Amino acid sequence: MALIVQKYGGTSVGSLDRIRNVAQRIKSLREEGNQVVAVVSAMGGVTDKLIGMAKDLSSSPSEREMDVLLSTGEQQSIALVAMALDEIGVDAVSVTGRQAGIVTTGSHTRGKIDSIDPKMMEGYLAEGKVIICAGFQGVRVDGMIHTLGRGGSDLTAIAVASALKAEICQILTDVDGVYTSDPRVVKDARKLPEVSYDEMLEMASSGTKVMQSRSVEFAKKYGVVFEVRSSLNNNPGTIVTEEHDQMESVVIRGVSIERSQARVTITGIPDEPGMSATILMCLADAEVNIDMIVSNIAYDGLARHSFTMHSADLGRAQAALKPCINELSSDSELITEAGIAKLSCVGIGMRSHVGVAAKMFQALGDAGINIGMITTSEIKVAVTVEEHQIEDAARAVHAVFGLDKAPV
Amino acid sequence: MALIVQKYGGTSVGSLDRIRNVAQRIKSLREEGNQVVAVVSAMGGVTDKLIGMAKDLSSSPSEREMDVLLSTGEQQSIALVAMALDEIGVDAVSVTGRQAGIVTTGSHTRGKIDSIDPKMMEGYLAEGKVIICAGFQGVRVDGMIHTLGRGGSDLTAIAVASALKAEICQILTDVDGVYTSDPRVVKDARKLPEVSYDEMLEMASSGTKVMQSRSVEFAKKYGVVFEVRSSLNNNPGTIVTEEHDQMESVVIRGVSIERSQARVTITGIPDEPGMSATILMCLADAEVNIDMIVSNIAYDGLARHSFTMHSADLGRAQAALKPCINELSSDSELITEAGIAKLSCVGIGMRSHVGVAAKMFQALGDAGINIGMITTSEIKVAVTVEEHQIEDAARAVHAVFGLDKAPV
Repeated sequence: MALIVQKYGGTSVGSLDRIRNVAQRIKSLREEGNQVVAVVSAMGGVTDKLIGMAKDLSSSPSEREMDVLLSTGEQQSIALVAMALDEIGVDAVSVTGRQAGIVTTGSHTRGKIDSIDPKMMEGYLAEGKVIICAGFQGVRVDGMIHTLGRGGSDLTAIAVASALKAEICQILTDVDGVYTSDPRVVKDARKLPEVSYDEMLEMASSGTKVMQSRSVEFAKKYGVVFEVRSSLNNNPGTIVTEEHDQMESVVIRGVSIERSQARVTITGIPDEPGMSATILMCLADAEVNIDMIVSNIAYDGLARHSFTMHSADLGRAQAALKPCINELSSDSELITEAGIAKLSCVGIGMRSHVGVAAKMFQALGDAGINIGMITTSEIKVAVTVEEHQIEDAARAVHAVFGLDKAPV
Repeated sequence: MALIVQKYGGTSVGSLDRIRNVAQRIKSLREEGNQVVAVVSAMGGVTDKLIGMAKDLSSSPSEREMDVLLSTGEQQSIALVAMALDEIGVDAVSVTGRQAGIVTTGSHTRGKIDSIDPKMMEGYLAEGKVIICAGFQGVRVDGMIHTLGRGGSDLTAIAVASALKAEICQILTDVDGVYTSDPRVVKDARKLPEVSYDEMLEMASSGTKVMQSRSVEFAKKYGVVFEVRSSLNNNPGTIVTEEHDQMESVVIRGVSIERSQARVTITGIPDEPGMSATILMCLADAEVNIDMIVSNIAYDGLARHSFTMHSADLGRAQAALKPCINELSSDSELITEAGIAKLSCVGIGMRSHVGVAAKMFQALGDAGINIGMITTSEIKVAVTVEEHQIEDAARAVHAVFGLDKAPV
């Protein structure tokens, strides 16, 4: 008898019929002899509706009260899923974040899970009950209701799986698993049976947004093996786990693409300590998330920095940087460029293989695609290209590394 | 500086505009120098929508899960009211039933308030905050979320007022207060400045349904003075309090009417112990609420019982009683009669005044109205009349006791 923790997102419980469907899936798992804890999100649309009401009442609603308000979405769905299970003869019980013993820290609306006291859940499991646990929420030591921010339900599932020492944690979503590339772009993209935490993290930060990075980081830290799989069928998904020897025989695990990127370049930066920090602080204050950062020393001792960001942030970035740049130097200039995209090759195997970047650049060159910026990490090489070329670029790189074929 | 506990029902917080209006009312009270705790219900319609979803998923949804589900309605409204107050510069904080320290007992969906630990609320008051407290909910000692059933928010307000030793508890509703009779029927009905707990209880059980009896009983038990007043204007309402000497100078406080009643009479009941209990058990099992009970010994040692109930329950009562009656005796007969109504005179003063019933019956007789059943309690005389005559009956009795004029 295995203990399985599952996570169902807002789409999976988005209507009463879908809730019935989730109940049937849990019932099957139970009938195969497993213990089940299902972490569920708010019904699709509910959270947005609550946010809409809050914004109507206040331009900047109290974050403490936002937590009180938004946590009701998950509390409703756990009760409804438990009722649907009862109705088909499965003994089920709901637990809120508080009842699940999830203790959080940090400021309101952006909680972090500090610890889990699984006593109540262990009691219910011992009684043979299926547990439906509210995702996205916990309680601070001062008794305040606390939500976990974006991707919070994934985090709940992984933390609960860790606390209960579950066999596996299944993240059920609207994709089948993690692919070597986006199947809508690269027709022969292949579903990966297994990836390492680090590969998953690099893919998450480079466009393959199956999960938020922090949930993967949490799983890595506590060694929680999890599986990304579809809530619409019973196909095996992708197991995300500690890297092991066989994994390294593959140089590149996947090719991620990220569209709608923009680049900002600042020229003529005096080559003095603290200049980069000043610029980055400007952007942070304006809540612009930047991705790639490239910095070169150019002619006559003046530096130039380039950043990429989502195009939607470009206007905000420009507004924030203008006053900042005038202070830096009268020679500074701000150059912006939208319509670019990012291509990343990820694989733990590249650590022990030289020439990955060379092979990638060669493939792009052969396809007539010009490379803009380049950044590398230990297990990733990322480049920017013009957005209209991103699909050709992905296909060329996918092919050159033979990702359409399963490794032998 | 007075501490005022207010209760706003679902209609008062039924839209975002109404929530803004509630916030303004609380702000005024605060600016007059008062401390304020507002107990709020779920936004009108929310609870019904949640019940609808539960019923869609299950013919008999788990009551434990109903509590988890329904308690979200109040949790949403407290957050929204607190946000609306913040927005107009009032430092406000929401508390759920659990955070308010409300400990309950009893079975799910029908909780009773056992005790209140007001520590957290006292802390917030000491910090000068307005508290918005969820009505209708608490937590059992086993950590389960618990709702209080019908009228639960009134009960919360009165219990919170008691725990915090509030100056007064205001029950804000869609009526102006308690009247000598229904103003839609008796044009010169007068708003009462004050009634005793017992009178309020008798009126509640005889058609003047401003509040559920159990909230009034709770207030009486703990000596909580409360005021029923309108949430739409600032007129003073009706104070409900311990009876005192001046109150007794008035013989009759009010005349209540209750329409859509039905009568069931069972004849030919053997005059043996346990017969009445058997009949009442049948009705209780079928969840028929009966009101008046009259029992007479008729000819040749066979008894006859009559009950009144709401017409809507008549079919259920007949179905439940038929098999029961056949068992009692072959001579038993079931006689039903719909289209009747109940008229009640209530007043603590009638204890010390004889002839109240006589005066009332005389007035009805003079108006050509025939009396069906009669029951009396220490402070109430109730009769049934034909439903089409109830308005004339109310006006006649209201006039004979001079209720249109304030007592001198």
